[in-house]
Amino acid sequence: MERTILLTIEYDGTGFFGWQRQPGVRTVQGELEKALCNVCGKPVQLNGTSRTDAGVHALGQRASFRGDFGIPTEKIPLAVNNFLAGTLGSGYACGDVRIIEAREMPEGFHARFDAKGKTYRYVIRHGTLPGVFERNYCYHVKMPLSAEAMEKAAVQIVGTHDFACFQAAGGTPRETTVRTIYDLQVKRPAADTIQIEVTGDGFLYNMVRIITGTLVEVGQGKKSPDAIAEILAAGDRRLAGHTAPPQGLYLEQIYYNEQQMKERHESWLI
Amino acid sequence: MERTILLTIEYDGTGFFGWQRQPGVRTVQGELEKALCNVCGKPVQLNGTSRTDAGVHALGQRASFRGDFGIPTEKIPLAVNNFLAGTLGSGYACGDVRIIEAREMPEGFHARFDAKGKTYRYVIRHGTLPGVFERNYCYHVKMPLSAEAMEKAAVQIVGTHDFACFQAAGGTPRETTVRTIYDLQVKRPAADTIQIEVTGDGFLYNMVRIITGTLVEVGQGKKSPDAIAEILAAGDRRLAGHTAPPQGLYLEQIYYNEQQMKERHESWLI
Repeated sequence: MERTILLTIEYDGTGFFGWQRQPGVRTVQGELEKALCNVCGKPVQLNGTSRTDAGVHALGQRASFRGDFGIPTEKIPLAVNNFLAGTLGSGYACGDVRIIEAREMPEGFHARFDAKGKTYRYVIRHGTLPGVFERNYCYHVKMPLSAEAMEKAAVQIVGTHDFACFQAAGGTPRETTVRTIYDLQVKRPAADTIQIEVTGDGFLYNMVRIITGTLVEVGQGKKSPDAIAEILAAGDRRLAGHTAPPQGLYLEQIYYNEQQMKERHESWLI
Repeated sequence: MERTILLTIEYDGTGFFGWQRQPGVRTVQGELEKALCNVCGKPVQLNGTSRTDAGVHALGQRASFRGDFGIPTEKIPLAVNNFLAGTLGSGYACGDVRIIEAREMPEGFHARFDAKGKTYRYVIRHGTLPGVFERNYCYHVKMPLSAEAMEKAAVQIVGTHDFACFQAAGGTPRETTVRTIYDLQVKRPAADTIQIEVTGDGFLYNMVRIITGTLVEVGQGKKSPDAIAEILAAGDRRLAGHTAPPQGLYLEQIYYNEQQMKERHESWLI
């Protein structure tokens, strides 16, 4: 019988040319589809929620697929992960992508179309030179950053706006550039680290990286926190900041339940 | 004028076939010599203290070289690091190997022959499945480990012994297999993490990884802590435990001053 299966996926984006299947290069979708085809015994086409770029990481990417397979749904993660790690049978090795969970969903469910929103995290280190172990996992900014100025700017981004100013050219064309950002937090988990966490109903191409680049310029004093409202109103990409590099970006969570997303948002406000 | 220069080097061993230069494969020594040749304007031959294996990391590898170069010693790290990161001029990117420090030493100094001892660190995670971000940086052990049993075994390894039982075949032949381990600590920095820190005047081929494999088997209850004395006395590799994988091993520090090494040892005892 046909089943619709939703996967939760973690990956280190360093070794991939992004999510989307492309001929001749190693992509997350491409590697997963190969492994799923091997494990399920027939070709699999994945619908992913986010087409993350080369170098971008995921803690909770989601993708769905449908088919009539011989293997029980709950056995798919371990079988696929072993295949991906190149260690069939041992069960404890790990490749640079792994399935965290496989869950059956009602017929007609689609990982992307049914998503209500997402949370991204962006990790910035400043001051000291980045070490070899951090080079692929954060954005290193030389000058110190004012988290306070960044927070002042961040609150102006929260809400429903036309985000054309924070959209890069080259993405899939969208009907509208209006999106709702439910929450945008600037945290300082360590003296030399700033993390940006942003939750919204959807994001335009490179939107989180451009928001981050803009907030970094605010944190460095190159832009005033008050400039955000003007940038948004003008809708001009050239007024916003630079595009922060992919290495610092993590797709953290996808929500299928608006309530769950808002609860997370509420918990942040406490 | 000829200068003898001592480098302190950090690397992520994942992308290297170990330290030692070999034709046709990417090694740390090979990449550094290429970069130094470019920066110094003439061929450079490095003398490294430790021939770390493929996958083994270093926080403080040391290597020395000698020559008459146009570039001041203090400018070598940034120039070489930019070359290694492939970002000439920007000064803030980082490759998977970088020079932390370059220092002039008296004529005749040799990084390996003058070393008085080393500290290695080994990182073990147990219980939960390793995530994609940890896969190259620790040894994942399924069963829980008793740090207490491992500590009992560790104290028996400290001291001057014939360590033939902890030596793998295939290393450079040594005059003697007697070494002194000044200190061997089993730490638990987090509930699911065990770190082994070992300081000695020298280590045989794969010695730290075999000590770790043996301690893991003690921690899992497969070997008694009291078995160590017998294993040492028998001098038989087959009685010791398995060789722990390279990913968890970090070359932490090299000592040129016996006093400094012993002070570090003393501070651990407090």
